[in-house]
Amino acid sequence: MSFLERVSFNHATFGPEASFTTILETVAATGARGVGVWTERLDGLSPTAAGELIRDHGLAISGVNRGGFFTGSTKKQCKAAIEQTLRQIEATAELQADTLVIVPGGLQPDMTDIRVARDQVKEGIARVAPFARDHGVRLAIEPFHPALTALRGVVNTLDLALDLCEDHGENVGVVTDIFHVWWDPSVYRAIARAGTRIFGHHLCDWKLDAVDPVADRGVMGDGVADIPRITAAVMDAGYSGWMEIEIFSKNDLWTMAPSAVASRCLGRALECFEEIEMLRKI
Amino acid sequence: MSFLERVSFNHATFGPEASFTTILETVAATGARGVGVWTERLDGLSPTAAGELIRDHGLAISGVNRGGFFTGSTKKQCKAAIEQTLRQIEATAELQADTLVIVPGGLQPDMTDIRVARDQVKEGIARVAPFARDHGVRLAIEPFHPALTALRGVVNTLDLALDLCEDHGENVGVVTDIFHVWWDPSVYRAIARAGTRIFGHHLCDWKLDAVDPVADRGVMGDGVADIPRITAAVMDAGYSGWMEIEIFSKNDLWTMAPSAVASRCLGRALECFEEIEMLRKI
Repeated sequence: MSFLERVSFNHATFGPEASFTTILETVAATGARGVGVWTERLDGLSPTAAGELIRDHGLAISGVNRGGFFTGSTKKQCKAAIEQTLRQIEATAELQADTLVIVPGGLQPDMTDIRVARDQVKEGIARVAPFARDHGVRLAIEPFHPALTALRGVVNTLDLALDLCEDHGENVGVVTDIFHVWWDPSVYRAIARAGTRIFGHHLCDWKLDAVDPVADRGVMGDGVADIPRITAAVMDAGYSGWMEIEIFSKNDLWTMAPSAVASRCLGRALECFEEIEMLRKI
Repeated sequence: MSFLERVSFNHATFGPEASFTTILETVAATGARGVGVWTERLDGLSPTAAGELIRDHGLAISGVNRGGFFTGSTKKQCKAAIEQTLRQIEATAELQADTLVIVPGGLQPDMTDIRVARDQVKEGIARVAPFARDHGVRLAIEPFHPALTALRGVVNTLDLALDLCEDHGENVGVVTDIFHVWWDPSVYRAIARAGTRIFGHHLCDWKLDAVDPVADRGVMGDGVADIPRITAAVMDAGYSGWMEIEIFSKNDLWTMAPSAVASRCLGRALECFEEIEMLRKI
């Protein structure tokens, strides 16, 4: 399979204004074959209808966003997050997608014991994993960069995400997102450990002068993450799935037209892939 | 020794406008006994004269800022950083201080192999450690939060800093700064590992909605870091040194008068210490 056939675009890369239909048309026109979708951004279509429209465009779904957010300062919050994730599992199945991305959840002003929050994530996954398995859905836990520990993910290293997977069968795994994992001194060892637990791989970059870890991420080549080497390690670990371009870029990509976003990102991705091929030949 | 006698204020906590003399007067008036100083902020005094002035105020030096920045994209840059650190070691000795803080150094636009940068830090420390030992100066490597990996410190976990210490004698150790280490799933294990290698402990907080990891840090209690538990662990590891209040806070503390900064920070530190005492009695 060529690299192009493995490329997917996450809807978020095109910014908050781009409609679902627009991005399907834009992505299909590039020759890429996958889209990462958000259940709240399906132009009002049901998941079933949206899944059909995606397939009508010759595209497949690389991942569905998103479940999780299992942390909370009350039991009610934690219970609501589990309920919401069960609904997202159903939506994933209705979309005929195979993978739901799990965002661990962060902290709140009255939560200063991160160990409690991590236990809530563990409990949340345990509560939804059997339901996901019964629906043929894989749960892909996304470890978040420590800059986002408090806002999004107390599970902030790949190893910690893999620890969570160990209680479960083969339908619970991880996403390796370059932005989130590049800084980690243990990243290569953890990728090897992950092996077939890698359910998704996200391409993006860490800008040297990033001002906002939520929405100031870089296009591949604009930053200092070693994208080729990390991606090569992911492939060497046995990953043969999507290379999903997911870039939250308020001040750059999101000011551009969708077709321009697609061209720039795809060009950069293909440059990375050339470097990856060289690394893997050595 | 009471907690108050262990409290130190880093000059930076008072912002870029506060003069050296002002902060000595302000800190001495609180009853705290230590100051963390910056060699470029001594009101034009020589290190020797500045050291005398500090002692005249009844204060001691908890740490000198700063050496390191050992990374670079050219050999010339790396060599210059080593030379500069040797000069800072001399200044530390002239101040009659015992500890120089080592900032590892970050990345640059043309540096995307973080492993090379980490090797440069290792090499830099090896090149300055004997000189420091001969001058009676301890080097305290400060691991930086991963949000600052690219800008300040490719050594971004306490374990990685401790790995660097292992090549050296007892004059090379670490700083445990709450802001930098609180998120780390291995932090308690790493603190126990550090033991007598802990040469400094910095108090501050991680604000839930922090917008800038350089200069938007929180006063203790304003954020979500578990300051009491981490500090108790540091004490349990055998640390009996300074509790240095170091808070870069452009939008909050730095808009306040020095005496107001001192009062707020000291009050919050003392609240933390009460919690620490309760934790350590259990």
